[in-house]
Amino acid sequence: MLNITFLPSGKVAQVPAGQSILQAAISAGVQVISTCGGKGTCGKCRVQITTGTPSQMTEIEKKFLKVSEWEAGWTLACQHILREDTTVRVQELTDAIKRKTDFAGKLPVKIKPSVKKFLLNLAKPSVEDQTPDWERLMAALPSSKISFNRTVAASLPQVFRKGGFQVTAVLAGERILAVEPGDTTQVCYGAAIDVGTTTVVVYLMDLNTGTVIKSGALTNPQQVFGADVISRITHAAKGPDQLRELQERVVRGLNKIIAGLCQESEINKEEIYTAVVVGNTTMAHLFLGIDPTFLAPSPFIPAFRAAVEVQAGELGLEILRSGTVRVLPNIAGYVGSDTVGVMLAVEADMLAGINLIVDIGTNGEIVLCGKERMLTCSAAAGPAFEGAEIKFGMRAAAGAVEGVRIAEDVQLEVIGGTKPQGLCGSGLIDAIAEMHKAGVIGRTGRFASENEQEKLPVLIRQRLRKSERAYEFVLVWGKDSATGEDIVLTQKDIREMQLAKGAIMAGIRILCREMGIELQEIEQILLAGAFGNYIRKESAVEIGLLPSLPLEKILSIGNAAGDGAKMALLSLEERKRADELSKRAEHVELSSKKEFQQEFLKGLDFGIVQ
Amino acid sequence: MLNITFLPSGKVAQVPAGQSILQAAISAGVQVISTCGGKGTCGKCRVQITTGTPSQMTEIEKKFLKVSEWEAGWTLACQHILREDTTVRVQELTDAIKRKTDFAGKLPVKIKPSVKKFLLNLAKPSVEDQTPDWERLMAALPSSKISFNRTVAASLPQVFRKGGFQVTAVLAGERILAVEPGDTTQVCYGAAIDVGTTTVVVYLMDLNTGTVIKSGALTNPQQVFGADVISRITHAAKGPDQLRELQERVVRGLNKIIAGLCQESEINKEEIYTAVVVGNTTMAHLFLGIDPTFLAPSPFIPAFRAAVEVQAGELGLEILRSGTVRVLPNIAGYVGSDTVGVMLAVEADMLAGINLIVDIGTNGEIVLCGKERMLTCSAAAGPAFEGAEIKFGMRAAAGAVEGVRIAEDVQLEVIGGTKPQGLCGSGLIDAIAEMHKAGVIGRTGRFASENEQEKLPVLIRQRLRKSERAYEFVLVWGKDSATGEDIVLTQKDIREMQLAKGAIMAGIRILCREMGIELQEIEQILLAGAFGNYIRKESAVEIGLLPSLPLEKILSIGNAAGDGAKMALLSLEERKRADELSKRAEHVELSSKKEFQQEFLKGLDFGIVQ
Repeated sequence: MLNITFLPSGKVAQVPAGQSILQAAISAGVQVISTCGGKGTCGKCRVQITTGTPSQMTEIEKKFLKVSEWEAGWTLACQHILREDTTVRVQELTDAIKRKTDFAGKLPVKIKPSVKKFLLNLAKPSVEDQTPDWERLMAALPSSKISFNRTVAASLPQVFRKGGFQVTAVLAGERILAVEPGDTTQVCYGAAIDVGTTTVVVYLMDLNTGTVIKSGALTNPQQVFGADVISRITHAAKGPDQLRELQERVVRGLNKIIAGLCQESEINKEEIYTAVVVGNTTMAHLFLGIDPTFLAPSPFIPAFRAAVEVQAGELGLEILRSGTVRVLPNIAGYVGSDTVGVMLAVEADMLAGINLIVDIGTNGEIVLCGKERMLTCSAAAGPAFEGAEIKFGMRAAAGAVEGVRIAEDVQLEVIGGTKPQGLCGSGLIDAIAEMHKAGVIGRTGRFASENEQEKLPVLIRQRLRKSERAYEFVLVWGKDSATGEDIVLTQKDIREMQLAKGAIMAGIRILCREMGIELQEIEQILLAGAFGNYIRKESAVEIGLLPSLPLEKILSIGNAAGDGAKMALLSLEERKRADELSKRAEHVELSSKKEFQQEFLKGLDFGIVQ
Repeated sequence: MLNITFLPSGKVAQVPAGQSILQAAISAGVQVISTCGGKGTCGKCRVQITTGTPSQMTEIEKKFLKVSEWEAGWTLACQHILREDTTVRVQELTDAIKRKTDFAGKLPVKIKPSVKKFLLNLAKPSVEDQTPDWERLMAALPSSKISFNRTVAASLPQVFRKGGFQVTAVLAGERILAVEPGDTTQVCYGAAIDVGTTTVVVYLMDLNTGTVIKSGALTNPQQVFGADVISRITHAAKGPDQLRELQERVVRGLNKIIAGLCQESEINKEEIYTAVVVGNTTMAHLFLGIDPTFLAPSPFIPAFRAAVEVQAGELGLEILRSGTVRVLPNIAGYVGSDTVGVMLAVEADMLAGINLIVDIGTNGEIVLCGKERMLTCSAAAGPAFEGAEIKFGMRAAAGAVEGVRIAEDVQLEVIGGTKPQGLCGSGLIDAIAEMHKAGVIGRTGRFASENEQEKLPVLIRQRLRKSERAYEFVLVWGKDSATGEDIVLTQKDIREMQLAKGAIMAGIRILCREMGIELQEIEQILLAGAFGNYIRKESAVEIGLLPSLPLEKILSIGNAAGDGAKMALLSLEERKRADELSKRAEHVELSSKKEFQQEFLKGLDFGIVQ
């Protein structure tokens, strides 16, 4: 067996010779970004070998790595076959977000969950001591302020006698959640839940050790009512039945994941005592069955903002019925607890200098931290980043173009390595960035005039054609596409992307103005969410979606919202911190800003924003 | 119109000439005891005319009143037809329980219910003021400690906009129960509920005025599983499904009553914001769906004792879903919140001298108040008082003999005035007392020997006959009974009654001993419950069921448990007082007392106990 050491975490994998670095990383629980799953098509799994002999460079590596990189020890984790003990450095992030690199490992929080177990050896009752079961329990517990819980009281007679009056009490502060026969102090689980508009994720965690036992995800079953939050709100606004339907759907999805995780881990659902939930404000309303109707029209009023704690049974969430479900606080109607989760994960209150946190989606949530302030806003980017309203737009699934390079001709990266059938958001940004750089489109988004076209490489020029009234750019010729149809980018597609990125940049600019800083003073950009993971940073800067920073100062931080949920699940202090972050955050409502329109127009142009 | 003044309350009824005193009393809301509803068959509606001319004595009055009583102004309220202004004194009770005389009127409590309404005129939101609905509500309320309520939060968006941001908030301490559009401060209802083993009663009350709007009763739908608490516990002990079945049955019964009361009063169920419940300890367990299994076997351990507060929705009780349901505290496994209700109603903590409170039933709950102590016990009387285990025993329904007099022959009072078909508890006590007085049975309960029989009147002697091995007494000859069958009292019936009354008297004696007093020091006896209302006090004393006191010192106080529930519903102070009473009460477990057996044997004999 070989010892493979991963830096900076120092984790060691013991693997047989012949495995790839990527396989070793997976077995050690070290996260290496890879979207193609090791097929060699994405080129994203770059790692640096610091000891050990480099192997021969593969054809695939030649495609993705520069010679200088190869010489510095960079390789693709999926391509490098291990033959000896090796030390590998995985993409290093700054201290503030180092924790993000290791999803399966321990989070660096002091474990102090809301749930605590107490082993009790009770005296047996007699005619001389007729103390009722509930009072007998209360007298043995450390707090005298525990409120009555009907479900627990109902269970006591059987539990006491089954356990021979040795029982384990499960407390959450001054609430009692359960009493179990015998000594069960070793068993204590929780669920961190990320309710996304598109995907719902559950992390099943051991609250004694702080580790993730297993996680699972599903498409949000509310999807049938539309892909974006507005369509969900519209459905909920039809009446209480529709609202209930949305609530039940998302809970049913979560229950399905939880049941699966429990089965795989041989854990009882009743041993999950608590859950922490993050999601955007609309998702939080719907998860709780609270009417989100007035989130949609101006002035965008949510029903609630602060953290909410309810019993699992009340929601139908199938963990312990009496278990506590805490939804982390929102900041505003379109800046939800998922953003608070991100802020928690990156320790927004501890970041040095001026940091910009962006979660790009239909709504771009933007946080600007600096000068002891935290400003937030939500920029309505529209659906372009999700691939919607784009002629050949699609979700980031197999067959989606996610990377584009234009030199003498067009080069593509396709998810799953199949023939392309459309573009996802990151592919769209890449395509437009490369088209701009190559001169296929100008600063204003217009296609090159006939004069300008003459300067283009011949193969590129051939791809520019006039269809009906307007130009379009053939990204994939029919012979190479999955459907046999040409995949094109239209002038309208480019306009949609301009609107989307214009909104984000306007939000960033207005937050800077509110804080009294120039755009150039931003020292670091943290990209949260799946989109932030896959976007090519150069391209995002090229089209002016993000301010121009040295690329190493733009960091993808993965599902930081889910990490925030995990932290709040493991630690009461982090939970309190989440509440404080949500209160400290100053929300800027862009629609109330007179300068928004002007900034938005300014942001439509392509090109690097300095 | 005539003015009819009732003493001691001073209430005045204005009625047309030609009505009976009973009709006038009903219209003035003055309670006059009557079990036959004015048919002239029960003789219980005795009242004293203090001004005004007595009318001719009716044949019915002649049957029930002595000449001396008639001369002192006593008459039957159902027989006396009013022709002029009259002042009538209804059976006077001592000060401590005067309140009990007027079931439909106001209870003499300072009205300060747990539920309070607040009218709020909220500012409308705008882009400049995006305060979420819940936070907007909280900022307008007087307390800053109100905890989140999902149901209320879910309703806010619609309620706020329906009421044009004028709303009424319903608070119970630091819990918010509801928010209603507009000004609804005039509407505030509650339910006082008495869950009896046999009958469930609901009093619908106006919490603004403190009056009973309407009340209704039903047989407890758990009856199908047995008439007594042990059979209910046995059923519940079979498993969670059976327990749930019992819980759902009693709640369904209550819901039926509530729905009826609401319909008759044109009140919405959602306008009943709170309920206070009393019942014996078993009924309290079953109402809450809490396992009562270990109440049955020694050492008789309840699951809980103190007052319990839960949300109505949790129980399925159909008042406001978020409404509070408070079950008053129990004292012990067989001394429940119904006894606490009685103690509250008679102000047990304020009674002067030494008072004995007895609620006779399958379990006789006994409270001895005096010397600044309150002692309680439960005496297992068995089913004789309910008419069960008695050959011709039956419930107190139409056709039941409820009164017996023996002189030259047997005279009967029958509920409903029909032909008799059996004996209810009070009839049984009456029969045995009269049989003892007449010499049909001796001190030990044995039937008279042939020698002794010769001293009996001839018609009585004829009724004594030997059947198989033992004597029996024919109370009703077949020609006079509803079924054509002779109605008899057997030696076994008499033994059953001896066991029952022996248990009660043993309980009374042991409480006296615990308090260090002699039986003769008891100054007043208060008989609670329906049975206490109908029992003939002379007979109860004659057979030694109660200690011998001047009859005016033995008072029937009606459904005092229900009155206690009403008081706790109307006043937070009374609620607190109930908690204090239950804590101050010192419970004496008879089965743990060595002297119980001896006292029990001593109590088996008939005859007046001095």
